[in-house]
Amino acid sequence: MARVLTGIQSSGRPHLGNILGAIVPAIQLIEQNSQEESFIFIADLHSLTTQKDGEIRKANTLAVAAAWLAFGLDIQKTVFYRQSRIPEVAELTWYLNCFTPFPMLANAHSFKDKSSRLADVNAGLFTYPVLMASDILLYSADLVPVGKDQLQHLEMTRDIASTFNRVMEEEILTIPEARISEEVMTVPGTDGQKMSKSYQNIIDIFLSDKELKKNVNGIITDSTPLEEPKDPDTCTVFKLYSLLASEAQTKEMRAKYLGGNYGYGHAKKELLDLILTKYSKERELFNFYMTHPEEIEKRLVEGEEKAKKVAYPLLQKVRSKLGFN
Amino acid sequence: MARVLTGIQSSGRPHLGNILGAIVPAIQLIEQNSQEESFIFIADLHSLTTQKDGEIRKANTLAVAAAWLAFGLDIQKTVFYRQSRIPEVAELTWYLNCFTPFPMLANAHSFKDKSSRLADVNAGLFTYPVLMASDILLYSADLVPVGKDQLQHLEMTRDIASTFNRVMEEEILTIPEARISEEVMTVPGTDGQKMSKSYQNIIDIFLSDKELKKNVNGIITDSTPLEEPKDPDTCTVFKLYSLLASEAQTKEMRAKYLGGNYGYGHAKKELLDLILTKYSKERELFNFYMTHPEEIEKRLVEGEEKAKKVAYPLLQKVRSKLGFN
Repeated sequence: MARVLTGIQSSGRPHLGNILGAIVPAIQLIEQNSQEESFIFIADLHSLTTQKDGEIRKANTLAVAAAWLAFGLDIQKTVFYRQSRIPEVAELTWYLNCFTPFPMLANAHSFKDKSSRLADVNAGLFTYPVLMASDILLYSADLVPVGKDQLQHLEMTRDIASTFNRVMEEEILTIPEARISEEVMTVPGTDGQKMSKSYQNIIDIFLSDKELKKNVNGIITDSTPLEEPKDPDTCTVFKLYSLLASEAQTKEMRAKYLGGNYGYGHAKKELLDLILTKYSKERELFNFYMTHPEEIEKRLVEGEEKAKKVAYPLLQKVRSKLGFN
Repeated sequence: MARVLTGIQSSGRPHLGNILGAIVPAIQLIEQNSQEESFIFIADLHSLTTQKDGEIRKANTLAVAAAWLAFGLDIQKTVFYRQSRIPEVAELTWYLNCFTPFPMLANAHSFKDKSSRLADVNAGLFTYPVLMASDILLYSADLVPVGKDQLQHLEMTRDIASTFNRVMEEEILTIPEARISEEVMTVPGTDGQKMSKSYQNIIDIFLSDKELKKNVNGIITDSTPLEEPKDPDTCTVFKLYSLLASEAQTKEMRAKYLGGNYGYGHAKKELLDLILTKYSKERELFNFYMTHPEEIEKRLVEGEEKAKKVAYPLLQKVRSKLGFN
């Protein structure tokens, strides 16, 4: 049985772009591949490279977990855990550091991109690929779904693991394979650019009805008068609607755009209604979890116990081989 | 009560240079400063930056511990432990990495010295000053005895701790002070250069009588004939003898050198006898420990329990502040 492992950024409450681009496809994949074991972790240790505020980190971690649970992540089929709760990963990171050539890290794209402002780069950011390797190798993952931007880091993981095995003269670490994510769905934000927290153009489906309405109404449209026909293919409202709606619904709205006498206000109202209907269960569950953090905690702790059972023996094997036992 | 912390390299069985230059002065200091609490650890995690063989590491760690115990390290007055047995130090290292600017590490002398052969530098070696900071800060050490070559690393520890406290807006980490070691005694090796394993010129006092005799006889001397007077101040045998002997004994040997009819063979014989007499207890104890590793283990485990009791609450405080609890 192949073990699939995925890390989730813990940078805060997922927006519609994260949901459509990452959460929903991942959960579908898990459901389809029930013969594969999945490890999904919230990468809160990674978040320390940029986020120093502990309260924000806790809130972010909670919100991320709530969103995944709200979208139906099956914690019977997956091991769902916080990276930081298995401190073995930090220990393995030290060991792996000693098998990682400095130039490998210095030549990483992710580091080179930052080399013009080195003073802002901390040693955590620099050695981040080693923590990522440790995340993967500690659980002997076979498959790691990665976007193209992470492919080099996965190659490093493979290199580090191979070096380790070669020096130790034993196949202790599993060399993982990349599963290149198919073209990730690009979800436009309220300004038409790719939806991203850093562009401040997100749609946050977990807002209250009233705030969500305001959020959707903030989508930028052109100034074509109400009566005139509109081009659906250049309109962000239509694009978002079509990402959520059925084919029939999308066809219907397209006709309304082209027919005239259909304003952006109408389209926004339909988009809002669709979000509220489509995600009514998820919004409710999200709010339930956010007001019952102990229910999130319970589920994460369950995953962490399972994760520990996998991490511990691997680490003992590594320790023993390195003469630390 | 000031807490003093010292790390010991675990690069193998200590030679006479290590004993006179490090072990004896440290043990004397501990005895004299009984009002200070001492933490002494064998830096086996550090050794992984260069030594990959686990069996060698285990043997080295054991031999280092045996030597310190043989020379009378009082484990009631000190917390004596293996660095690797408190994996909290690796966890803290990750946290501190995220507060350590990349240029600080890139500008360290220890790294710059190696920058001409970067391919040989691993990420462990590069981030070694952060592990050192973690070693010190995890135990809230007040005083760290350092040689001049380590002073910059201690400055980094202070910088990292200050940054952490400033960002956290709380004095969580104790800023350690350096205690600059007075001029370390230079012990000549068998070839007259500074005694060092890498020069293959060591005197190993823990060898059997027969092998030790061979070792001492290997000290290089000049070819002044037996009958002629000899210059004690340029002779390695005399230098070593004077480091071990009483003033009266040294004076006596000096007279013999100057008087003539006293050969280097005689001097070597006296040096060997002195080592055997002076260190008879230590040699016996060392052999006892090396043949009873369970006795070493028992003492180290005792220290590790004490160390854990200090490390754990500090790490919890850090975790909690960073939002990992």
